[in-house]
Amino acid sequence: MHILIIGAAGMVGRKLGNRLAADGAIGGKPIARFTLADVVAPQPLSGFTGPMDCVMVDLTTPGTAAALLEAKPDLIYHLAAIVSGEAEADFEKGYSVNLDGTRALFEGIRLGRQGSDWTPRVVFASSIAVFGGDMPEAIGDEYLLTPETSYGAQKAICELLLSDYSRRGFFDGIAIRLPTVCVRPGKPNRAASGFFSGIIREPLAGLPAILPVSDDVQHWMASPRATVEFLLHAAALDLAPLKNRRAMTMPGLAITVGGQIAALERVAGSKVAALIEREPDPVIAHIVSGWARGFDTQRAEALGFVAETEFDEIIRVHIEDELGGKLPKLG
Amino acid sequence: MHILIIGAAGMVGRKLGNRLAADGAIGGKPIARFTLADVVAPQPLSGFTGPMDCVMVDLTTPGTAAALLEAKPDLIYHLAAIVSGEAEADFEKGYSVNLDGTRALFEGIRLGRQGSDWTPRVVFASSIAVFGGDMPEAIGDEYLLTPETSYGAQKAICELLLSDYSRRGFFDGIAIRLPTVCVRPGKPNRAASGFFSGIIREPLAGLPAILPVSDDVQHWMASPRATVEFLLHAAALDLAPLKNRRAMTMPGLAITVGGQIAALERVAGSKVAALIEREPDPVIAHIVSGWARGFDTQRAEALGFVAETEFDEIIRVHIEDELGGKLPKLG
Repeated sequence: MHILIIGAAGMVGRKLGNRLAADGAIGGKPIARFTLADVVAPQPLSGFTGPMDCVMVDLTTPGTAAALLEAKPDLIYHLAAIVSGEAEADFEKGYSVNLDGTRALFEGIRLGRQGSDWTPRVVFASSIAVFGGDMPEAIGDEYLLTPETSYGAQKAICELLLSDYSRRGFFDGIAIRLPTVCVRPGKPNRAASGFFSGIIREPLAGLPAILPVSDDVQHWMASPRATVEFLLHAAALDLAPLKNRRAMTMPGLAITVGGQIAALERVAGSKVAALIEREPDPVIAHIVSGWARGFDTQRAEALGFVAETEFDEIIRVHIEDELGGKLPKLG
Repeated sequence: MHILIIGAAGMVGRKLGNRLAADGAIGGKPIARFTLADVVAPQPLSGFTGPMDCVMVDLTTPGTAAALLEAKPDLIYHLAAIVSGEAEADFEKGYSVNLDGTRALFEGIRLGRQGSDWTPRVVFASSIAVFGGDMPEAIGDEYLLTPETSYGAQKAICELLLSDYSRRGFFDGIAIRLPTVCVRPGKPNRAASGFFSGIIREPLAGLPAILPVSDDVQHWMASPRATVEFLLHAAALDLAPLKNRRAMTMPGLAITVGGQIAALERVAGSKVAALIEREPDPVIAHIVSGWARGFDTQRAEALGFVAETEFDEIIRVHIEDELGGKLPKLG
């Protein structure tokens, strides 16, 4: 298997790459080669001895997709995107990267396969931001896509493209709508959803965190570990049962901010939880008010996708995977 | 009001233009100017004495949208499209015209309005082809878009773009999903849905017609007259109640091919109905099998959109509007 990861330098891309390199195989097939691509230079994966190309590319530059696809990878992960806050702030950049970049990739595959039987698996990271506005408390698999951000609109459009290109036989695609990844490690990014992780990550590092919304805000979350499992599962799955509906929401956990804080207190104590400072931000509160509160993900569950069922577990995953099992020592 | 009609040379575009010219006003506001655009030269509208530009343009040519929009029309109808059969046969042409052409128009408005308060009403002709595959017998307003053709995918994508551009305030858009127009006058076009009209239109002209599917195929139809009424109503409606969900299915009539033929026999007699010849075509039957059978269009009805409720009425509309009220004389 030759695996191409686009967006390999991002948080999820790095975790996915490292996990694939450690496993050495996917779906029972040995991994022979990696191509890691991003707009910044991706780091090589340790523990993999086969050929590995780390390339700095921008899919929106003409010719880039063709060059990236020249070796006809068997499995293509497309994780690259401008995040929601930035896509809302910069209309043109969001459409350029999130829509035109993805379309350039899909067109690169379509044009690159002509005269061959190359039909790669494409795993596209979509988002629950395809939903918004007035929605049921638990959104089912047949509910209308109703984005309330340009980011969500771009993801919804790419899902439609992916299903159509798959129906046409140009590639074998699946779009998985990732829950908000929590607890996202590292520095905050420009995603409006950043605080859902910040209020757990910063206190667990002994640092103050800002909560810009009220405690009753509810959202759909999964750990980085569960997110990587979704991506691995999507690569090896038989997609024929999906027919032409290639997009689906991933399982997750519906929890309020208040529930997150209560779990943090249970797992790490009240001194840690007391590091959260409430500073209402009407701009973030407005964006978040248009987001989904929960899902009914029967379709993904029937296909074997699994996520955490308690937020305490999500916190423990973060402590294990990012903090070496250690809690902060507070005075 | 300055009205721009893109796709003005098409069947619906011509009927709309003539009706607007005859009315001389829309939503109580007098029409001061027309711009009629199409890839073939649109015919001037008779009975309108104000300025009227008839232009032959291709929206996919760079600069075209900007030139077309220079006079900042108040109301823009976008009816131009490659039809379903052709978009399926020619993947690149379908995406170019139906997606890139529409996006060029939307971008032309966004870029053209900078520094001004020009916020035109945009009425986009979408299609029930945004639905396909396994669907409920009556598709409600919150049902997932599930296109099974590239044409349907292109229309669904343009709906998402229109809602996002409207949410951003670049224009005030509405996408109305037209039922299959029946009875479509004139020559057959390359739409796979052509036979729904052909089996009524040709016998009413005393000519044989081919039926390529079985009698139990059911579909969602409205007359050309009702279709023009949808477009007029969409132009003058207050769109604020739609919030950011700017697309909706238009009312129509769910009827089987067998029901159409029975109505033809009732209205025009058995000799006329006997002109229908059954010649099953598996390609057309396969395309049509993926189409919607019926809808529950509460949202559009609440906004005042109205269609025929009996197929006999649709046939009578055709006889009145296209045949001068006359039935064929058969020996």
